This record gives sequence, structure tokens and C-alpha cells, in this order.
Amino acid sequence: MGETWVLMKTAQTPTNIAVIKYWGKRDESLILPVNDSISVTLDPAHLCTTTTVAVSPVFQQDRMWLNGKEISLSGGRFQSCLREIRRRASEVEDKEKGVKIEKKDWEKLHVHIASYNNFPTAAGLASSAAGFACLVFALAKLMNVKEDESQLSAIARQGSGSACRSLFGGFVKWIMGKEEDGSDSVAVQLVDEKHWDDLFIVIAVVSSRQKETSSTSGMRESVETSLLLQHRAKEVVPKRILKMEEAIKNHSFESFAQLTCADSNQFHAVCLDTCPPIFYMNDTSHRIISYVEKWNRSEGSPRWHIHLMLGRMQF
Amino acid sequence: MGETWVLMKTAQTPTNIAVIKYWGKRDESLILPVNDSISVTLDPAHLCTTTTVAVSPVFQQDRMWLNGKEISLSGGRFQSCLREIRRRASEVEDKEKGVKIEKKDWEKLHVHIASYNNFPTAAGLASSAAGFACLVFALAKLMNVKEDESQLSAIARQGSGSACRSLFGGFVKWIMGKEEDGSDSVAVQLVDEKHWDDLFIVIAVVSSRQKETSSTSGMRESVETSLLLQHRAKEVVPKRILKMEEAIKNHSFESFAQLTCADSNQFHAVCLDTCPPIFYMNDTSHRIISYVEKWNRSEGSPRWHIHLMLGRMQF
Repeated sequence: MGETWVLMKTAQTPTNIAVIKYWGKRDESLILPVNDSISVTLDPAHLCTTTTVAVSPVFQQDRMWLNGKEISLSGGRFQSCLREIRRRASEVEDKEKGVKIEKKDWEKLHVHIASYNNFPTAAGLASSAAGFACLVFALAKLMNVKEDESQLSAIARQGSGSACRSLFGGFVKWIMGKEEDGSDSVAVQLVDEKHWDDLFIVIAVVSSRQKETSSTSGMRESVETSLLLQHRAKEVVPKRILKMEEAIKNHSFESFAQLTCADSNQFHAVCLDTCPPIFYMNDTSHRIISYVEKWNRSEGSPRWHIHLMLGRMQF
Repeated sequence: MGETWVLMKTAQTPTNIAVIKYWGKRDESLILPVNDSISVTLDPAHLCTTTTVAVSPVFQQDRMWLNGKEISLSGGRFQSCLREIRRRASEVEDKEKGVKIEKKDWEKLHVHIASYNNFPTAAGLASSAAGFACLVFALAKLMNVKEDESQLSAIARQGSGSACRSLFGGFVKWIMGKEEDGSDSVAVQLVDEKHWDDLFIVIAVVSSRQKETSSTSGMRESVETSLLLQHRAKEVVPKRILKMEEAIKNHSFESFAQLTCADSNQFHAVCLDTCPPIFYMNDTSHRIISYVEKWNRSEGSPRWHIHLMLGRMQF
């Protein structure tokens, strides 16, 4: 094995937007949610993360750059993903470069990661979902990991909960699971991207500033202080999940739209019920929602896919 | 009985601000709530309604002016209050004017009502609470009604639910009651205005425009569509009512402030969980709340009464 080679892999992963929301963890370190969630994965041509991972014997440590700026990998979430992927690494051979990496070599080799979002980071557009899904997927390709997407989703989940849903296209369900070790808390594809290909999603970026409260700390505070969250998780969401799966299966836009709006509003309601309250909407969000509601009512039924989505698919 | 006399009475009633909120009716026409509520009555020197009621044999019909503009009395709420007060009217004698009205005369006599608010109407400052309480109280004085404040509160309640709480000073509890006819749905004074006389309340009028959704239709929509409202009414509020009564009794500002903020936020959360969602806060409200939360945290405990209240006591 020479001393100057570099192997690289690049992956591109779209963001996903929940139509039945994930808000609240029952296990903070494994990132296990208090309820199932369902999302739609966006077209990778639009909002996506592009991540290149490289390995070389000259790299002295794991390092990462996000949008061109180095960030620390010392956090538990990055460490979990790197550890779980390395554990599953296989032999890799690049005959052209004359490089062969044995399974056991991966423990000593370091990676460099360069990740770019083509949309605002931490502004409510699920940048961490796309980011961790892409990181895990790119590392899995680099290290020749044999696991399927669902198994990879359980690793991406440990980076950012909603990341597990970005490993599939179309409509994706994150099953909360029951096991304490999180092994059954994985994403599954409900239908692929061709199933409902006349569904359009418009993202209105109402503000591109970083959220004042991160999802991580916001969720923690909601779990600790909101008296409505557990009722939502146990009584409301399970029924909505069933209805949403039906709506998606049957292309029932009316039901889909009604459930999506109601669940988005309830998520924001739980944020407001948190102490101190979390505001993820502003006056512009309110105005957009009100216009969309009026428009849909004037049409009799929510025919205006793109306008209906507009009011919801952002904070 | 001459033909040109006029008898008049004037009353002044302050608005009240709920610290445990009323949101949702179980009976629309009798105005019976889904939960108990507790409010603090403001100093009448500040936000109040002044109502003058007059009776004269020359009046051809009941009429009312609000802030100088005639409004219709045909609505069920005005009719309920007028009917219930008239039913309890007694003999009135004004020897100076040589006027004597027998109990039975009240059925044929008409009243004119002039009401003024010294604060914005229908902007989230409980104008209807002060208004109906004042109307009922002034009519009761004019017609020599013998009922006590609690009995009058059950009449004012039929004008506007929260009006029942404005018939007392200090801290007031509206007991939701159990009877179908609403006879036990009355206000009671918990402590009078002297009990906690170093409590200051600051009202910040964030917007003086009329609310886009009236309380009446907003509540109806919340009851019909929010999946969180019943949980709040049955599970959350009863415990909070007990804690709030304790906090008031013991002058425990910390507990009082925590409960007030949490309940205000939960009320707004239920509004958001309504379909279509109801927005009673704007960016300025959000900013005020965030400042107050930071201020209180930096102080260790919520010592800043006036600032803490500032963020809550308006929509």
C-alpha cells in the first residue's frame, strides 16, 4: 500500500419534509422518537446535500468541512455515525491506483469529508437530515459497507433523527420501534417517487436565518415541559399515520392535504406549549398559511397542491 | 306616571385578564365552558367600560350605542341579558322626579344604552367581558334587581362568557358548573383586590386592530377541530386551577408567573392546533415574550412582575 494515494466517493442526498412530524425523543443518545413519522423526499435536483468523502494514509485525523468551513467532528452524533460505519467496513480494492484496503485497515485510516448544502443551513429546511443521510451513504460507499438502505437508516438516525428518512425517495415512514437498542427504529419506503409524480412541492424560504432554537434542544424542552406532547404522540399521531398511509396509497390529495396541514399546525402548537415557548413561524408564515387556507376554501376542496404546500413546508 | 321623564344609571366595569384561560364552550347558547378559568380584574381607573342605561316611556324600542355608534341589539346574547334582567326587575321609585315604575311595567318599557370603552374594542383586551358585565350591572341597578354579584354573573355570562368574571375585583374564578341549565356556572371571588396589591400588570397593545377571528367563532372551531383541546380541558386545566388558587392564596409569584405563562402559551397552542389555525400573536408578541423569558432567566427567578406580565397580557 503506497503512502500518497487518495480514494474518494461523492454522494448527493435530498432533504425530506415530514408530513406527519417527528418532534420528541424517548432516547436522546440513540435518537429514538416518541412517535412514527412520514415524510416526502424532495427531488435531489433542488434541495440537497452533496458530500465527498476521501480516505488517504496521509490524513492524520478525521476532519470535515461544511459549506467550505471546517467544523468539529467531536460531537457524539458524528462519532456514532463514523463508528457504526467503520464497524461495517469491508475490503476495498482500486486496481487502477494499486490500492487495497483490508477490513481491519479502516480502523487506522482517517477520512476527510466535504459537504455542501445548496439551501440555507439550520433554517428549518432539514439540512441535518440531508447532511447526515449523505454522510452515512457516502462513507458506506467508500468503505464498501454491504448493509441495505434500511440498515443504513438506523445509522443515519444516530446523526440526526430525520436523516433516516432521506435514504429513500418517494414517501418514507420512520417506524419509531420498540427495542431499547434502537435496532427496529428504521426508515422504510412507503411508495417510490413515481407513485405520485404529479405532486408538486413549493418551498417558500420565509427567513434564511438560523433558527433561534435548534431542533435538538427544542425537542428536549418540549418533551420536558409540554403537557400536550405525550397526548399527541400516543393518541393523535398513531391514528394520523394510518390515515396518511391510506391517503398516499390512494392518491387522495384532499385527505393528504388536510392531515399534512393539521399535523404541521399541531407540531407548532406543541412548540408553543413548551416552556419557554418556541416560535418557528413568523408573521409571513402566518400570512402565507391564511392565504392558502382561504384559497383552498374558495376552491371548495384543496386542489391547489402547490399553494397548499407553500404554507406548510417551511417554518 | 308622566310621559317625559328619564331615569338613568351609570356603571363602570374593568376588563379582566385570564391567568388560566377560558377557551371552548360545551353549550353555545347558554355559554357554558369546557373548563374552569381564573382571572385578575384590572383597576377600573385603567381599562374599563362605562355604560349609561336610561329608561323612559318615550323610548319606542331598546337601542344601544357603542363608542358613539349605534349597534344592533337583535343578537341572542343581548336579548338573553335583557330578558334575564327584566325578569328580575323590581319596583322603582324616584320621588324627586315623581316617577314610580311597577314590577310589571318593566315588560313594556324600553331602554337606551350608551357604552364606551377606553381601550381598543375586539383587539384581545376582553372588551366584551367588561362590556357585558357593565351592561348587566347597570341594568340591574336601573331595574332594582336584588340578585347578588354571583347571580348577576350567570346573566353576564350569557352575554359573553368571560364577562361573568368582571363583576368582582381581585382574583376571580369562573366555575364551569355541571348543570345543563347553566345555573351553577357562575363567577366567585377568590381574593379581593387588596390581597395582592403589590402586583402590577402592564398591558402592551401590540396591535389595536380587530382580531381576524372573533373569540366566539375561534372557540367553536377549536372545539370542533383541535385534537388537543379536550385533553387540555379535562387533564391539564383542573390541576392548574388548584395550583393557581394555591399560588394566589400564598402570594407565590414564581408559581403564579409560571402557571400564567404556561397556560397562555397552551391557549395559543390550541388556537394553532385549530383548523384553519388561529393566530393571535404576531412577531412583536413573540419578541416581547422572548425578552421577558430571557430577563426572568437572567434574574434566576421571575422577579420582574411587570415585565413578565407584559408578554402575556395581550394577544
